[in-house]
Amino acid sequence: MPELRKDPITGRWVIISTDRSRRPSDFLRESAAQKGSPYCPFCPGNENKTPPEITARRPGNTGRDAGGWRMRVVPNKFPVLGIEGDLDRQADGMYDKMNGIGAHEVIVETPNHAETFATMPAKHMEELLWLFRDRILDLKQDRRFKYIMVFKNHGEIAGASLEHPHSQLIALPILPKQVIEELDGAKRYFANKERCIYCDIVRQELDERVRLIAENPDFVALAPYAARYPFETWIVPRRHESAFENSPSHLYENLAGMLRNILIRAYHVLENPAYNMVIHSSPVQDNTNDYYHWHLELMPRLTKIAGFEWGTGFYINPTPPEEAAQFLRESGA
Amino acid sequence: MPELRKDPITGRWVIISTDRSRRPSDFLRESAAQKGSPYCPFCPGNENKTPPEITARRPGNTGRDAGGWRMRVVPNKFPVLGIEGDLDRQADGMYDKMNGIGAHEVIVETPNHAETFATMPAKHMEELLWLFRDRILDLKQDRRFKYIMVFKNHGEIAGASLEHPHSQLIALPILPKQVIEELDGAKRYFANKERCIYCDIVRQELDERVRLIAENPDFVALAPYAARYPFETWIVPRRHESAFENSPSHLYENLAGMLRNILIRAYHVLENPAYNMVIHSSPVQDNTNDYYHWHLELMPRLTKIAGFEWGTGFYINPTPPEEAAQFLRESGA
Repeated sequence: MPELRKDPITGRWVIISTDRSRRPSDFLRESAAQKGSPYCPFCPGNENKTPPEITARRPGNTGRDAGGWRMRVVPNKFPVLGIEGDLDRQADGMYDKMNGIGAHEVIVETPNHAETFATMPAKHMEELLWLFRDRILDLKQDRRFKYIMVFKNHGEIAGASLEHPHSQLIALPILPKQVIEELDGAKRYFANKERCIYCDIVRQELDERVRLIAENPDFVALAPYAARYPFETWIVPRRHESAFENSPSHLYENLAGMLRNILIRAYHVLENPAYNMVIHSSPVQDNTNDYYHWHLELMPRLTKIAGFEWGTGFYINPTPPEEAAQFLRESGA
Repeated sequence: MPELRKDPITGRWVIISTDRSRRPSDFLRESAAQKGSPYCPFCPGNENKTPPEITARRPGNTGRDAGGWRMRVVPNKFPVLGIEGDLDRQADGMYDKMNGIGAHEVIVETPNHAETFATMPAKHMEELLWLFRDRILDLKQDRRFKYIMVFKNHGEIAGASLEHPHSQLIALPILPKQVIEELDGAKRYFANKERCIYCDIVRQELDERVRLIAENPDFVALAPYAARYPFETWIVPRRHESAFENSPSHLYENLAGMLRNILIRAYHVLENPAYNMVIHSSPVQDNTNDYYHWHLELMPRLTKIAGFEWGTGFYINPTPPEEAAQFLRESGA
């Protein structure tokens, strides 16, 4: 009998196919393997092919937009939002609109075109997480921005138009619908129980261990109870933290370790899958609260065919999260 | 300057790229063209390859699961929900679940493997819409079901695993999140203005005509103000109707005409695009109300890369709906 499960935060129901569940080998899938590219604007030597860099991690004796960098932040060459101007909120008949003010930045994660999160040294990944933090702290000074989203698309099928390892950051003047839903769900739970729902999830998952994938002193990695996608994985701080960018420094070190750990497992079990990774954090102007708990969501793109969800907004997950967790848990990291 | 637009019903914000907008020819796209298949379980002669038919439209002298049919309804061979059993709602620690009770049916739309909605005779399409209605009326007698969703995936990239023209129907014991959002948004608007929001949308679009694609005595086809996808099209009854299955009979005739009209335009402008089509209607046990207005949403799958939305729940539409509407309006139907 398939199972309907309710995401406790958003209230979203998901169908979990428990009977004929799909194993890793069952998935039609485009691997994210690097195809090699004759020309890459993110590779060293092509620094002048990107807009001028916003910041970088580089030795002191190298200049802006010169070589020698370890990671670079540049404006997206084709930004979906513009940084200059006023929001100019207004009606359009019965509708509402505003100018598309925001920031859209690209974080080039490494000079190495063939690097992945599964192969990146832990120290390098930690430095990258600190760089995410620094960009958020800088951008949140702009009071026009309500939400800052850091995300990564790995593999063409996951939306990466360039192979070279990179993440993106978007600063928005509004709260996206999905963020509001999570915040509202977490607020409702807190109003009812005076506990953070994510803290309760961490507690139950550590207790039951069936959906637990890995743990370290600061984080647990788990397959969420109402996973929308096969092998969906959340990395959640053990202790309550409402905002990614306000976390104590040991969290960045342990997040780097956990991310590597999980991506190596995923790399083995799912053969270098394409994936989307999104940091879910509190709105930047309300980032110390009792009800919302930042975390990272990792969604492998295993099914070429995602038409059902796309069209209907209704999720069908062919792999129960308990089985996905077991595959990942039993794989070496 | 890109524009942020708010969907007036759900409150969802969408980025509309107004500056460098993408024209039909700009899209990397997999066409839904038929590749021909050596074997098809939905073709005439293979009736015994599907589960026994639930109903069909066929001449009186042909028997169940025999040839000669014009359209057939069969259970999905790989149903995502099971029809037998109790819902058995229960807690699972802090979580909620229930048995995956529901119906999952396939409507084989025509014996002709190479047919499409753009080429199907209007009379045949009308008969098909009546068949959708009959299936909904039959299934809604089962009080376990709260929502019945009729949808069609055309083309592999849109999630169609079989080429032969078919639609699907899913009867659910819950309201999907996206349905609740639409209902809640429409209720809020009605509470505030005592008018149906869709009726107001139809009025404004008929008045402004910039997002209008086509009209007939019963329907308007429009590009929605906060379209999530390029060339997203809604077909909306001109007069308030809360449920698809309760519509007066002339609506089925005129919906058939409008669907053909729109799909021929899309076929020309977008070269037989893959698409998802979903009928949005009131919950089956609350299908006469003042606030919700059924309609049909058509979403061409033009961008291979939908990673951004997938990962973040935030939509970026590279084609302003006004331009999409103009392309479709100016194409012959």
